Amino acid sequence: MARIVMKFGGTSVADLDRIRNVAARVKREVAAGNEVAVVVSAMAGVTNQLVAWCQALSPLHDAREYDAVVATGEQVTAGLLAIALQDIGVEARSWQGWQIPVATDDAHGKARIERIDGEELVRRMGIGQVAVVTGFQGIGPDRRITTLGRGGSDTSAVALAAALGADRCDIYTDVDGVYTTDPRVVAKARKLAKIAYEEMLELASVGAKVLQTRSVELAMKQRVRVQVLSSFEDVPGTLMVDEDEIVEKQLVTGIAYARDEAKITMRRVPDRPGVAAAIFGPLAAEGINVDMIVQNIGADGTTDLTFTVGKADLARAHAALDAGRAQIGYAEYTTDANVAKISVVGVGMRSHAGVANTMFRTLAEKSINIQVISTSEIKVSVLVAADYTELAVRALHTAYGLDAA
Amino acid sequence: MARIVMKFGGTSVADLDRIRNVAARVKREVAAGNEVAVVVSAMAGVTNQLVAWCQALSPLHDAREYDAVVATGEQVTAGLLAIALQDIGVEARSWQGWQIPVATDDAHGKARIERIDGEELVRRMGIGQVAVVTGFQGIGPDRRITTLGRGGSDTSAVALAAALGADRCDIYTDVDGVYTTDPRVVAKARKLAKIAYEEMLELASVGAKVLQTRSVELAMKQRVRVQVLSSFEDVPGTLMVDEDEIVEKQLVTGIAYARDEAKITMRRVPDRPGVAAAIFGPLAAEGINVDMIVQNIGADGTTDLTFTVGKADLARAHAALDAGRAQIGYAEYTTDANVAKISVVGVGMRSHAGVANTMFRTLAEKSINIQVISTSEIKVSVLVAADYTELAVRALHTAYGLDAA
Repeated sequence: MARIVMKFGGTSVADLDRIRNVAARVKREVAAGNEVAVVVSAMAGVTNQLVAWCQALSPLHDAREYDAVVATGEQVTAGLLAIALQDIGVEARSWQGWQIPVATDDAHGKARIERIDGEELVRRMGIGQVAVVTGFQGIGPDRRITTLGRGGSDTSAVALAAALGADRCDIYTDVDGVYTTDPRVVAKARKLAKIAYEEMLELASVGAKVLQTRSVELAMKQRVRVQVLSSFEDVPGTLMVDEDEIVEKQLVTGIAYARDEAKITMRRVPDRPGVAAAIFGPLAAEGINVDMIVQNIGADGTTDLTFTVGKADLARAHAALDAGRAQIGYAEYTTDANVAKISVVGVGMRSHAGVANTMFRTLAEKSINIQVISTSEIKVSVLVAADYTELAVRALHTAYGLDAA
Repeated sequence: MARIVMKFGGTSVADLDRIRNVAARVKREVAAGNEVAVVVSAMAGVTNQLVAWCQALSPLHDAREYDAVVATGEQVTAGLLAIALQDIGVEARSWQGWQIPVATDDAHGKARIERIDGEELVRRMGIGQVAVVTGFQGIGPDRRITTLGRGGSDTSAVALAAALGADRCDIYTDVDGVYTTDPRVVAKARKLAKIAYEEMLELASVGAKVLQTRSVELAMKQRVRVQVLSSFEDVPGTLMVDEDEIVEKQLVTGIAYARDEAKITMRRVPDRPGVAAAIFGPLAAEGINVDMIVQNIGADGTTDLTFTVGKADLARAHAALDAGRAQIGYAEYTTDANVAKISVVGVGMRSHAGVANTMFRTLAEKSINIQVISTSEIKVSVLVAADYTELAVRALHTAYGLDAA
C-alpha cells in the first residue's frame, strides 16, 4: 500500500469522457490498495476564457477579483470528478483550496503556497475516501482566494504530496515522460526512466517545458518523488528523484534547446569598474532577465560585451540601453534575434571532465560556430545561429551516446 | 442617503456588455449617495450547462458536489462585476457565500439561509465600497458550499437586505414590474406601483412568476421593501410593501391564471368518516400536492369528490388512486387536464363583501361554467375549461375596474 497524489492537467479533463477516463485510472490505484488524492486543473480552454473576460472588462484588473474568477475552473473539475468517481463506486469528495486550507501568501495571481494542513485529508484517505483537490489555488491571509500562476497545478500537486507525506506524486500530462531531447527533432530520443531534480530544473529552464519550474524546485526541496506520465497511454513515465537514487549515471542525461532568446552585443564599452552595473542595473530595474553574459578583455581601454535576453523583452531592453547611453558610454550595440541556445545537462558532469570539450569538438566537426558559452555545475550551454539548432542537437545526442539502439 | 441591495438575474448579466450596463446602474446609485450591495446570478445559460454536466456524469449525483460545481457560476459573475465597477471608478469587491458568511442548513441543492453576518459588509459599505455578493449560495454546517435551489438569488437578495438593514431591495429582472394581469392576455393591464406581500404571494403561487415564492415569504416575514424593476429600461417598477403602506386599496389588485393543474373527479365514494384521509393520505405520501378540493353531499350513502393536482404529478396520482381502490371503495374516477385556474387577488377583499359574487356573475354573463371554487381571505379561485382562460381573465379585468384608461 502506498499513498499517492495524482495530478491531471487541462487536456486530461477536457470533457466528460476524459473525466470518466481519469476516474477509471483513479479507481485502479484505489483498487490496488493505495490511498489517493487527486489534483485537477480546469477543463482545457476554460481558464483562457475566464482570463479573457477579466482582461476585456479592464486591462488593469484587480488581481484579487481575477483570482476569484479564474479559480472557478478547477472547482468545476473537482466537483465533476468527485461525481464521476462516486458513479463508479469510488468514495470521493472535492476540496477547494480554502476548505483544506492551502494557505498562500497574498501575491494574488502568482501566490506561493506557505502551508497545507493535510491532517483531515490523511484521515479520510485512511478510510478509503479519495480527496479530489482543486489545483492552482489557495487562500490568502485576507481569506480571499489566491491563484499560483500558470501551470500552478503542478506546484499544488507537489506541495500536497509533501504535506500528505505521499510516497509518490504522479503528474499525468499529454507527454509520456521526459526524453533525452525533443523527439520531434531527434527520432532516436529515448525516454528516461529516472531523472535527477537538478537535471529536470536545468532542462525545464532551457525549454523542455514538461513541468512548471517552481514545482520541480519544490519537489527537490521537499524530496518528493515525482513521476511524469501520459494520461492517455498506459505506459511507465519518468521518475524524478534524488541524484543518489540514480545508480548508473550517464555523463549527459539530455540535450535541450531554446529559441526564445536574443543576443545583444555592446561595442567599445569603457573598460572601467562599475560599467557592468551601469548596463545591467537598468535592465534589472525593468524586470528584464539577462541570461548568458560574456565580456572580452579589451586593449584600448574599451571592451566588447555580449549578453542574451528573452525575445519578449527585447524592445524594452533596447529602450533601457538607449536611455542609459550617456552614462554607460558605449559606441554602439547590435542585436541578433536569430540565435538558439543549446545545452547539455547531466549530474554525471560533476565527477567527469571533458564534457564541455566533447561539445565544442562535436560542433566544430559540423562547422557550427559557437557565439557565447556559459556553464554551471551540471550544464554547458552555447549560443549558435538558430539555423543550426536541429543539426547541433542531433550531433550532440549521438556524440554523448544518447541515441536509442 | 439610503442603504440599497440591488439584485441582477442571469439575463441581466448574460455577457460582458450587460455586466458593464449593470456596473453603470450601480454607479448611479452610488453617485446618488447610497450605500450599495449587489447580488448577482450566474450569466444566463451557465447554470444550465453546469447542471447538465453533473447529470450526464451521474443521474443520482451527490448534492454536495453538485453545489460545489453550480455555485461557480455566481462566483464568476461577482468577480467580473467587481472588475467592471472598479474600471469605472467605483470601489468594489466580490464576496462569496462562505466569505461573508451566508450560513445555511445542510439541505444541499435546496438549502435555507439561517444567518447572514453582515457586520463587515456594513462597515465597508459605510466607507463607500460596493459589496458584490454571489446569489444562490451559502455555506453549510459542514463548511461545504450549499445552493438554495432555482431562483434562489432572489431569496439571497432579500435575506441580505434584511441582514444589512437595507432601506430597499431592488430586484432587476426582464419584466419591468408586477401587472394587474398578464399583459400578453390583456392589453389594458396596468403596472402596479405598489403591491402587498400577501397579494404577491397569492399571485406568485397562481402563476405570476416574477419572484421566487420563498423570497416573497422572507420579505414579508422580515418586512423588507422589495422593488421589482427592469434591468433594461429605466422606469420605476413595482414596490412590494406591507399592506398598511397601501393607502388607496383596490378591491381587487390582480387577476392570475394557471394552466398547470389537472382535475380528478372520483364518483360514488362511500360517504363515511376517514374516506378523505384514505384518498389524500397516499397522495401526500407520494409528495403530490393537492390544490382545490370540493366534496358534494351525496344521497345514497355515496358522494362525488373533485380535486386538482399539478399536471406533472398526474401519472403518479393515477397510480396511487389505482393502488388504493379497494381501500377507498370508489366506483370510478375521471381526469380532465384541459382546465385553467382563474384567481382574483386583493387585500381589499378583507373588508369588502361581494367580490366573489362579482366574479361568478361576470363569468356567467360570458357563459363560462365554473367547475370548482376555492377561496382564501384575499383570493377567490375558480376552475374553468382551459379554452375560456383569456376570455375569463379579460372579462374579470374589466369587471373589477382594472383596465388602464
